[in-house]
Amino acid sequence: MNTAATYSLDTLPTPAVVLDGERAEQNIRRLADYAAQHGMGVRPHTKTHKSVEIARRQLAAGAVGLTVAKVGEAEALLPAFDDREPDILVAYPTVDSARASHVADLANHCTMRVALDTPAAIAALAGAASRAGTTVGVLVDLDVGPGRTGVPNVDALVTLAEAVTHAPGLRLDGIFFYPGHIWNPPAEQTTPLKAVADTLAEACDRFDRQGLSRDIVSGGSTPTAYQSHLVPQATDVRPGTSVFNDLNTLRGGFCTHDDIAATVLATVVSDAVAGQVVLDAGSKTLTSDRCVPTPDSGYGFLPDYPEAVVTKLTEEHAQVDIRGCPKPPSVGERVTIIPNHICPCINLQDTVWWKEPDGSLRPLTIDARGRLS
Amino acid sequence: MNTAATYSLDTLPTPAVVLDGERAEQNIRRLADYAAQHGMGVRPHTKTHKSVEIARRQLAAGAVGLTVAKVGEAEALLPAFDDREPDILVAYPTVDSARASHVADLANHCTMRVALDTPAAIAALAGAASRAGTTVGVLVDLDVGPGRTGVPNVDALVTLAEAVTHAPGLRLDGIFFYPGHIWNPPAEQTTPLKAVADTLAEACDRFDRQGLSRDIVSGGSTPTAYQSHLVPQATDVRPGTSVFNDLNTLRGGFCTHDDIAATVLATVVSDAVAGQVVLDAGSKTLTSDRCVPTPDSGYGFLPDYPEAVVTKLTEEHAQVDIRGCPKPPSVGERVTIIPNHICPCINLQDTVWWKEPDGSLRPLTIDARGRLS
Repeated sequence: MNTAATYSLDTLPTPAVVLDGERAEQNIRRLADYAAQHGMGVRPHTKTHKSVEIARRQLAAGAVGLTVAKVGEAEALLPAFDDREPDILVAYPTVDSARASHVADLANHCTMRVALDTPAAIAALAGAASRAGTTVGVLVDLDVGPGRTGVPNVDALVTLAEAVTHAPGLRLDGIFFYPGHIWNPPAEQTTPLKAVADTLAEACDRFDRQGLSRDIVSGGSTPTAYQSHLVPQATDVRPGTSVFNDLNTLRGGFCTHDDIAATVLATVVSDAVAGQVVLDAGSKTLTSDRCVPTPDSGYGFLPDYPEAVVTKLTEEHAQVDIRGCPKPPSVGERVTIIPNHICPCINLQDTVWWKEPDGSLRPLTIDARGRLS
Repeated sequence: MNTAATYSLDTLPTPAVVLDGERAEQNIRRLADYAAQHGMGVRPHTKTHKSVEIARRQLAAGAVGLTVAKVGEAEALLPAFDDREPDILVAYPTVDSARASHVADLANHCTMRVALDTPAAIAALAGAASRAGTTVGVLVDLDVGPGRTGVPNVDALVTLAEAVTHAPGLRLDGIFFYPGHIWNPPAEQTTPLKAVADTLAEACDRFDRQGLSRDIVSGGSTPTAYQSHLVPQATDVRPGTSVFNDLNTLRGGFCTHDDIAATVLATVVSDAVAGQVVLDAGSKTLTSDRCVPTPDSGYGFLPDYPEAVVTKLTEEHAQVDIRGCPKPPSVGERVTIIPNHICPCINLQDTVWWKEPDGSLRPLTIDARGRLS
């Protein structure tokens, strides 16, 4: 796929991820404008795209820094900062010496922060930072609802923050939260986000009274992105998926069809079984992730064949029930799929294709793919 | 990860896929011995490992050729044949000119066969083979139950085979089938495999009477691998997963625990939420594939913590319910996970780690990863 050949949508080998460049740029700008309007920073989560070019576009639109899940991703995306000092948040606890040392090494050259939630992570990172003779910023992680990471209450958060202030090589920079449990339609997010805001207000108050730094209060998700102002304590937000969107965000009511900037181009390879066509985009392209708001809707959506249902994926085959289609796609035809979840799809690609306004396709490298730790 | 550093299981950066070399070699030999005993060939499906080294081991054990899902994989695995003439079956219909031309180009240098099920695929491949001045072997695909690809009955198969014999550049080599619908325990496979055998007997009889070649009748799957003799018409079998096994094959009763040759090594990164630990192996490592025989058993199994349940995966987090564990794993500890489905896990790795009998780890490149079409 890393060929210099000039492809069009009619000739690009399939399966392939195609980015609508104008829409991606528009999604980046829209979030930047919203955040600026509310006096918040954007620290986009790059797990969605893992691309230097996309990260560079996000920074050009005003992002205050980048968020990554893996330390290896931080390293791969450093070139996106160009002449600016890199500012990277690792939104993942670095409890092992390999990751902690990697963070500390990078901190010698740029601003590195880690979100963490255990004394073990503090010890690992403090040890690594001390050995490297550097300082790493820390955000302490408060669970506001998802129950994935984060300490359960403000008392525990304050205890964790105090431990950070006593650890060598670490600098307490503030609070980290993730409202990943909120998938309500935007109009119904007021109550759950008010609960998050109340918890954060209590946390900020305690931090202030005890003299604990909280220059950064970092939150946000794609579903809640444009309601982030309902949590006024947040200084920055970290949406990932909103740069491209997918069926999760479309069906959740978090974007419109015109905001879908990433799709999978696939070819119909078989119609031998009655009532069905098979596409060359299986679980090794679309992943087995279900659509969160509509878990029984199948494995993606074909906008040109809205009655079609992707009923089953195996590794290289998508079985599509076309019995409801007035005119189903035929063998050899290319079809567009909106994936349920775009982030793991892009993670399966070495290269995706950026579509320019004139329809031409340009290869875009997924620079941070395969950085596992 | 492609470092020359010497790692042990205590120092290998996580998450990582670790292969037990002795077990993998044993799995390869066992299938080879079984097939030899029953006078069948093995044409292993390399989609599981995508590795030149593993393919070379399978060929050394007597495999008659290799099976691939993608033409790009065929190309990547050619070195496995060393001095022997490559013999590759593309178990996937090549209906588009790009794939068909790629097959034809390779056919100029080695034996290439394609399984197909539509006149469109015949036309595409015949055109490409003619343009390249070469001959491509064809197996016609009969649906024996899975309803994924393959024509529905013997009449349609004979029609398809006759079309192949009239197409320039193509050589009819026989019949392709995939008993992928059979997930019964081995002791309960007799009846469904008898039905497959009856259909194939009818097909072979018709082929013989009409003078259609069927030198190859290729079938098999991992669940049915060691019952393949119940389909005596098959000349070769194409199991993929059996080289490593996974929770699907273990829970299905198709292997024992001692046959599990591939596991994921992960680190506990958080225990901040009560009753739970979080591992650094999310859906970007384990995939969201469920266990076919036990779909509600979670996303993998921790053999050292059998009471633990991997309840939820997000991209980089596995949430593990440890409330049933007498002594749960602690933060920083490394744990072993048997994935539900090993094939898409390995597809996410650039490098996996081959464990030698002395415990040392050697990097093994996933050569054909990322070959999309």
